[in-house]
Amino acid sequence: MNAAYARLKSRFARMALVGEAGAVLHWDASAMMPPGGAAARGEQLATLAGLAHEMLTSPAVSDDLAAAGAGGEWDAANLSLMRRAHARASALPTDLVEAAARANSACEKVWRRAKAASDFAAVRPHLEEVVRLQRETAAAFSAALGLPPYDALMDGYQPGVTAAEVEPVFTAYEAFLADALPRAEELQAHRPAPTPPAGPFPAVAQRALCQRLSERIGLDYDHARLDESLHPFCGGTPTDIRITTFYSETDFAKSLLGVLHETGHALYERGLPAAWARQPVGEAAGMAAHESQSLIVEMQACRSDAFLGFLGGELHRTFGGNAAPYRAENLAGLWRRVERGFIRVDADELTYPAHVILRFRLERAMIGGDLSVADLPGAWNEAFTALLGVTPPDDAHGCLQDIHWHDGAFGYFPSYTLGAMAAAQLMRAARRDDPAMDEELARGELLPLVAWLRDKVHAQGSRFGFQDLLRHATGKPLGPNDFTEHLRGRYLT
Amino acid sequence: MNAAYARLKSRFARMALVGEAGAVLHWDASAMMPPGGAAARGEQLATLAGLAHEMLTSPAVSDDLAAAGAGGEWDAANLSLMRRAHARASALPTDLVEAAARANSACEKVWRRAKAASDFAAVRPHLEEVVRLQRETAAAFSAALGLPPYDALMDGYQPGVTAAEVEPVFTAYEAFLADALPRAEELQAHRPAPTPPAGPFPAVAQRALCQRLSERIGLDYDHARLDESLHPFCGGTPTDIRITTFYSETDFAKSLLGVLHETGHALYERGLPAAWARQPVGEAAGMAAHESQSLIVEMQACRSDAFLGFLGGELHRTFGGNAAPYRAENLAGLWRRVERGFIRVDADELTYPAHVILRFRLERAMIGGDLSVADLPGAWNEAFTALLGVTPPDDAHGCLQDIHWHDGAFGYFPSYTLGAMAAAQLMRAARRDDPAMDEELARGELLPLVAWLRDKVHAQGSRFGFQDLLRHATGKPLGPNDFTEHLRGRYLT
Repeated sequence: MNAAYARLKSRFARMALVGEAGAVLHWDASAMMPPGGAAARGEQLATLAGLAHEMLTSPAVSDDLAAAGAGGEWDAANLSLMRRAHARASALPTDLVEAAARANSACEKVWRRAKAASDFAAVRPHLEEVVRLQRETAAAFSAALGLPPYDALMDGYQPGVTAAEVEPVFTAYEAFLADALPRAEELQAHRPAPTPPAGPFPAVAQRALCQRLSERIGLDYDHARLDESLHPFCGGTPTDIRITTFYSETDFAKSLLGVLHETGHALYERGLPAAWARQPVGEAAGMAAHESQSLIVEMQACRSDAFLGFLGGELHRTFGGNAAPYRAENLAGLWRRVERGFIRVDADELTYPAHVILRFRLERAMIGGDLSVADLPGAWNEAFTALLGVTPPDDAHGCLQDIHWHDGAFGYFPSYTLGAMAAAQLMRAARRDDPAMDEELARGELLPLVAWLRDKVHAQGSRFGFQDLLRHATGKPLGPNDFTEHLRGRYLT
Repeated sequence: MNAAYARLKSRFARMALVGEAGAVLHWDASAMMPPGGAAARGEQLATLAGLAHEMLTSPAVSDDLAAAGAGGEWDAANLSLMRRAHARASALPTDLVEAAARANSACEKVWRRAKAASDFAAVRPHLEEVVRLQRETAAAFSAALGLPPYDALMDGYQPGVTAAEVEPVFTAYEAFLADALPRAEELQAHRPAPTPPAGPFPAVAQRALCQRLSERIGLDYDHARLDESLHPFCGGTPTDIRITTFYSETDFAKSLLGVLHETGHALYERGLPAAWARQPVGEAAGMAAHESQSLIVEMQACRSDAFLGFLGGELHRTFGGNAAPYRAENLAGLWRRVERGFIRVDADELTYPAHVILRFRLERAMIGGDLSVADLPGAWNEAFTALLGVTPPDDAHGCLQDIHWHDGAFGYFPSYTLGAMAAAQLMRAARRDDPAMDEELARGELLPLVAWLRDKVHAQGSRFGFQDLLRHATGKPLGPNDFTEHLRGRYLT
């Protein structure tokens, strides 16, 4: 470790601390802040982001990167991630960053009204401007990083995966789904309809249950809080995690399953290597890796037959009333229902990837210049019909439903499904290493699984790219087979 | 306004935004943060403080200050405050700042144990080091600001007041107290002993009452929150105020009167001139000015006979039970009890200044080199006996009771009593301008008083120094007479 690299480590630690301050302010804005604080908060966050950007792109960092050398696997990976962060931050001219921020903000505002009115024409000129600037952005990142333009955007969310690697995985899933979906629907049609538990479910009791379950599966509330916000998320910092949810007194499932999901994210952050805290190599390995950790907890473990048996008992003890709706088979019927819906965020585990595959292909075509914004609604509906056999009734149920593109986020969507597939792949490897997994889950014990994840994933930080992380943990790169195997077991038997 | 001044305004706004981020993180640390977040929070706050200090002391600021010119009263005051902030920030060599921070932190840790054991000898060497470094600090500020050393420290808390102005005001109070205290005690002894209302007082009901009353006296919860913390305070930012309190279910008075006090601080921040937000001239005019605003609400208005009549009714409606303890005379007996106590934070309105006068003289002597730390306990007890006629039984009830000196805060104490005197002076002027004040207070209406304060104090920001602010609002500089007049009316009739 030479002096230039040592200086870089200090600089990056300082930037990370500014980022941590921003993370707490973000959480506060969603969970605590009175409405009148919003304008000032926007300026506070922009100032912190600007300071961190100035620190990262300063000439001193360039000079030190040119002179830096680091031996040892972790330090070498860290230095390489520093170079990547600096290259990304330096790639964009300030006027492009500002133009994109303005365009995103203007488009997002119009989109809220356009979505409510299902009026694509209203948002179209704004989205055209967003896409134009995202294409410029992609070109600039592409030149700086030596990646194809769309990959250069995807790299901002999930480093280390290319569209060329993703496309065959998604194509294979498409083929699986064409066969699996009608079979799953048929099986479902022959089962008795599930009974929703009768409410109301007091928010206070839900909150206590959510906290108790998240503690049971490994979240330490000396280093975490559970609060409420309109849109649930996991924020904060690795030693001070903030998860949020939203309670409905007529339906406990959304907050409960949401908290289990966010707990998966939280455990990842808590398990990152403390020795590399505030260094690039000590961070989580990307959005797909993060989603794999929330989904392995929520989807793989907590919606398993084994865990539902345990959970049903907890629920009945908490809410009382008739025991029948809390039986595992009934909960499975409620929480694992397959449906050809139009809305991604409401989609089930089996059809969710179709929503993502559609978006991946369309956004890749828009960034590549092969699809114009004007043609987006038609292309959406055509692709949707091909994938799921039903056609959205309007654009509110189609290309207007998500905020992402209208806020300038291109290259994010694949992470959801890469995460779901990685979760299945990790779960299979974990089961192989721990044959008693299902007995543990039946007792409500996730700690052995979490310990395995800590060792194989959390404690690895960003030492590996996504593919190498999976190779290290499961012996192979990302593929669809463990996920389709999991779905076969859950939906086709 | 020339270009250099315009650049300075942008720079100071950016620094203020970093300060706002820090203020929210401070609030979070006290009111929300899980214990495991403390270490990271300390580093986040130190990083933000370091960034703001770098911004303020950068060569670009020096250059712009040398070239800046501003016309108009507000801009001229703003530029002068910028010069003062830069001079203060640049006055101390980095090694002195760091040595003082280390010494303060080490002393404060030892002090916690020393206070519990009433063991002055244990903390003495640490306090000697703190005082040595504070004398160096005072000398450096003195050279940079052209003020006597102790005044230069006081200037960090309350700009625009000198020890030479304070001493005669305090001497006059001392003479008043020597006569007033025995008379007040005698009158009190002839009144029936007050009856404490019978609890318990549920925290939920207390919280609702505190919020309702603070709203009634003018705090807008679209721009504020009320939460709990061990040590109550008013934090946050002018458009997003965070006040805290601590509920005891056996005694509602502490949280209630505390929230009224913090509401006074909050209304000051809310009423600062929005057009000068994030500029030095748009800030509150110092700690004494701030304390005048909390005390005019809590002590002058809310503990008045008129308001207690209204408040008693509210309390009885909230907590039920026997009405007698909620009558104004009984509440006055409970909340305006005079006592020769040893502990400043428990002191009543009449004897509180004696606690402050003592500290002012001792700290001034320590900074001036006329009193050694070794002689502090003896000097304390001697001065205390002279002022209040009783002698502390041990140093825990004497010179070990407050954190201030043991954490390096010298020059802060006078602000408490300057604020109390200013509050009386402002209240008298407000009554003169609004002869219906007592009828309004009897109806629980503070809005006319708050509107007067907004006009005369809040909206003036830091345009005036403390003395000129009082001249502007009341027609005269600070004096003890309105305060002693108030005390005569409340305690000697």
